[in-house]
Order: sequence, then structure tokens, then C-alpha cells
Amino acid sequence: MTKVFAGIDLGGTKIQSVVMRSRKIVGQERTPTPHTGVDDVTAAMAATVKAALAQAELAVADIVGVGIGSPGSIDQAKGTVARSPNVPGFEGSDPVPLGSKVSRKLGRTKVLIDNDVRVGMLGEWKRGAARPYHDVLGVFVGTGVGGGLVLEGSMRRGRGAAGEIGHTIVKDDGRTCSCGRPGHLESYAGRGRIEAHARELVTKGRKTDLFKIMEKRGRDRVTSGVIARALEHGDKLTIRLIDEAVWALGLALASAQNLLDLEAILIGGGLGDRLGQPFVQRIADAMQPQLFVPERAPVMLTTELGDLGGAVGAAVLAGG
Amino acid sequence: MTKVFAGIDLGGTKIQSVVMRSRKIVGQERTPTPHTGVDDVTAAMAATVKAALAQAELAVADIVGVGIGSPGSIDQAKGTVARSPNVPGFEGSDPVPLGSKVSRKLGRTKVLIDNDVRVGMLGEWKRGAARPYHDVLGVFVGTGVGGGLVLEGSMRRGRGAAGEIGHTIVKDDGRTCSCGRPGHLESYAGRGRIEAHARELVTKGRKTDLFKIMEKRGRDRVTSGVIARALEHGDKLTIRLIDEAVWALGLALASAQNLLDLEAILIGGGLGDRLGQPFVQRIADAMQPQLFVPERAPVMLTTELGDLGGAVGAAVLAGG
Repeated sequence: MTKVFAGIDLGGTKIQSVVMRSRKIVGQERTPTPHTGVDDVTAAMAATVKAALAQAELAVADIVGVGIGSPGSIDQAKGTVARSPNVPGFEGSDPVPLGSKVSRKLGRTKVLIDNDVRVGMLGEWKRGAARPYHDVLGVFVGTGVGGGLVLEGSMRRGRGAAGEIGHTIVKDDGRTCSCGRPGHLESYAGRGRIEAHARELVTKGRKTDLFKIMEKRGRDRVTSGVIARALEHGDKLTIRLIDEAVWALGLALASAQNLLDLEAILIGGGLGDRLGQPFVQRIADAMQPQLFVPERAPVMLTTELGDLGGAVGAAVLAGG
Repeated sequence: MTKVFAGIDLGGTKIQSVVMRSRKIVGQERTPTPHTGVDDVTAAMAATVKAALAQAELAVADIVGVGIGSPGSIDQAKGTVARSPNVPGFEGSDPVPLGSKVSRKLGRTKVLIDNDVRVGMLGEWKRGAARPYHDVLGVFVGTGVGGGLVLEGSMRRGRGAAGEIGHTIVKDDGRTCSCGRPGHLESYAGRGRIEAHARELVTKGRKTDLFKIMEKRGRDRVTSGVIARALEHGDKLTIRLIDEAVWALGLALASAQNLLDLEAILIGGGLGDRLGQPFVQRIADAMQPQLFVPERAPVMLTTELGDLGGAVGAAVLAGG
């Protein structure tokens, strides 16, 4: 019988699982991330895998490997997670043995964990839009801006922290990043910093419909969908903020391209996926005048797997 | 008998050759680059190799391989050079068969050619200061700012243009680079652009001893030695220009470090070597507050081979 793999994308707001057989998704399930600590989070993770298995008429005993993509500091060898500020129960500096906890709930199956962004890139590279390339940078524009770098056909890890394209300096003494330093790409292109800057500008008297749209949609934060809607409505402040995101992405990605001479750059993440091809084209246009070899620009890609990329990549990590 | 290799570093102002046996330099010779065309340049290249051989009581027949580092567009397979604006006779878009011309003058020995910066990095990586590392960026601060990138123990080429750290954008709409684009690292740290900017400031009425020192030394351009002397004299304009170079290097190298998580960064080139360890330390200090993983800064290195790095790297390219 063909081997079955599960992949779990653990995020601050949701848990997304997939079950894969013969490189195809045969089941998928999503649930909000519980706010009540590690045991409830791991229980919810196992429950989504079981629900995804049920869709394919499979059982826990059929799984040969489980992969997890998680934010925070990952110790792959020990299967632990620490310092993950957005996942309730995983915020502390004491490593949580996530791998063994999930394994125990899924028939003691082998569990592998890696960084969520790297796992998302693995999904798009092995099963998604980046398949044809062996030198490709994935830029995940979501709440923050993460990066996954594939060079010469292998995922670059460096000493564990490679890929942080979000922390490219685009403006000396510029807007403050989530990491506290000034002028990073993420300060301009991360959804979280875009929202924070919009709130600042509103307190300074700038007009915008962004927060009205947010409330109308019953949200308590400016989601990618809220930003997209505000752009469609021609909201001037939102247009300006996205112009700045495109500008910052153009600078940072042109510098990376000049250093690495990549074949392709993939734009994903919640905001990247929501704004899609027109956004990616604008970033390509912003990069173009800054490229040292303008006649060989990298191919610019949107994702194929969208918000399933992390879970699919996690299944790939497990061997699927 | 041990194999003998020759390496030639072809520059716009000088030709430097070395002869190596058992990984050691056994002869070296330097001559100004002739301004009288391809035949005189290749004759001078062969003459320096012969002079270096003579120092070790060796003859052309003893050489098993010759390597050349050259600026411009290199076709490694064909052994040709084109578009090398600073080397008389090699400026045009028609490729010059440099490899075969030099081979004919050196007993039809096998000749290999690569980009001068990549060859310089090869020298420091295989025979110099970067030996202990398998993830290291070499930054050559000379007339321009070149880069050689070793990742996972191999020299990164990309599609032929990898390593252009000098064309990292450090200031949007900043000072014009030699490539014509604004705000690149090279616009602030390249000796050529530093000189051009100093001349501009002088026409605007700024005072400096930089050009007096240049004339006193019988130079027609602001060499690295002239800059070093002006700094020692406390020349305010020069101090400011080097402050800006350090600032630009700090930003560009921190961004590269955040993306790649390198083990080490080597600072070389004419200006880098001349200003040496204190300059490298200043760059390290400028990078530090911008590093995403500040507790694991890259090791910062000066070169070991200095201006012999290119010729030694060329010999390594040939198999030496």
C-alpha cells in the first residue's frame, strides 16, 4: 500500500493539516489555534490530522510520518519549539517537546519539525510553483515577511537563521520593524507593521476607510482581505501603504538578486497570495531598474498551494 | 617532479603574476598594464610569468597550467574576454581570445580564465584568510566594490553574475554608482566613486587636502594610499567620505548576513587592504546593530594574500 504522510502548519491563528498519498492531498482540515495552552494546541493538531485522515477513509495506523511547520526557535534533533510569541503556550524560552507530544497522540508516529517559513518554501519548491527551479527565493508577505532560500537545489539553512529577507535594510533610520530595528523590508511590507503604521497615521489625523472596512467585516485586525477591499475601494491611505510595500520589496529583492543571481523569486504569504499576480507584477516592475543584469531578471512567481503550502511542505519534510 | 602552476591577475593598471609549486609562491612579478592594445598586454602577461619562473629557476616547459583573473565578460569555455572597460584593447563587445593568445606565448600550456573578483576570492578561500570557512563572502573594496561568495563549500556563480554585493541598494535615490544606478554600496565605498564625489564637493567649495596629497605623491588619481594618508592627516572631508563608506558597508553586509547567515565575511581590495584591520573593525561595529541574530555575528577577516590574492587564485583556478 502507498505510504501516507501528514503535514501540520501550526500558526498563531490557525492550525492547517493535510494528509498526502502519492504526492497528492487526499484530506485537509483547519481549526482555530486554541488560546488555552500546549495540551489543547497539540490535541487540536492531532484532531485536524484525524479529520483529514477520515476524509480519505484512512486511520492513524496508516501514517508513516508527520511533519510540522512551526514559528519560533526549532531544535530539529530534539523536536522542540521555544520562543514562539504568537502561539499560546510556546512563548517561553523553555523548549516545548512538540514532536513527542504530537507523536503520542498519533500512534507514536515519527514526527519532524522545522521552521514554518522554510517548510512553506519546501511545499512550493517540491510540490508547487517553484518546482522547475534550483535557485529560488520564496518571500512570504504575511503578518511579517519571511524568506526561504533554495540554492543549487538545496534549502539554505546557514547556521540555522538563513532566509531572513524581511530584515533587509531598505531605509536607514526608517520605520521600526517588529524586531525593533529601523528601516527593514518587513517595516514596510509586513501586514502587522502596515496596520500599526496606519493606526499611527490615523491618530495624526489622516483619513482612511481601512478600519471601517475592518469593523464591517467583523475583524479586530487589518487582515489581508481588509487591505485588498480597501484597495478596491480606492482608499488613498491604503494605496499609499501598499505603494510603499511594493517599493520596499523592489529594493530588497533587487539587492538579493544582484548578490545571488537567482533563477526565480516566489511571492507568497497571506498578503502576497491575496493581492496575487498584479502585486507580483508591480514588485517585478519596481525591481527592474535596480537589477545589475536587467536583461536576465528572475522569473517572478505566485504560489500554487496558497495557504496549504505550509502543511504540504510539512508533509514533504516527513518524507511525503 | 612537483607540478608548477602560473597565475596572472590582469588589471587596468597592473599585471601581477605568480608561479606556485606545492601550494607555495616560488616566484612573482608585476608590471604596469600596457596602454597599446591586446598584443602588448598579452606579451607583458607572458613576460611576467617568465620572469617569475626565472626566480625559481624554472622554465616555461615546467608549467602544467596557467590561470588568469580578468575583469569584463568572461566566456570560460572559449577562454575569451569582452567588455572590460579598463583594460586597453579589451573594451569592445567583440570577445578577445585571451586564453589562446597567452597559451601561444607560454608553450601552448592549458590556460583557464575567470572573473577577477571570483579569482581573488578563490585565492583567499583556498590559500588565504578564508581557508577555515565554507560559507563566506569576500568583499573587495577597490576602485569598485566586488564580491565573491562561497556557499556550502563552493563558489557561487548563479547564472554567471552572482556576487555583486557592490550593487546592493543602501540608499534609495542616493549617490550615483559606476553602473549608473542610484544609491548602491559602490557609490559610497568604491574608491572611484569616493574620488568623484570628493571632486564634486571641491567644486562646491568644500576644503580638503586630499588632492594636494595626491599631487605631492605624484599621482593623477586618489589612490588608496592617498586616502590613507589624508585620514592620518585628519582631513575632514576624507574622514567624512570614509565614514560614509563604513556606513554603507555596514548596511549592505548586515542585509546580506541576515539573508545568508554566513560564517565569515572577508574585506579585501586595494582600499580594504590599505585601511586594514581598523577599517574592518569599524565595518563590524556598523553591522552589529543591524544583525537579526546579533549574538552570532560573522567572523570578520582581513586578507592574508593582499594584492597577490588575484594571481594566487588564478594559479588555484589552473589547478595549483
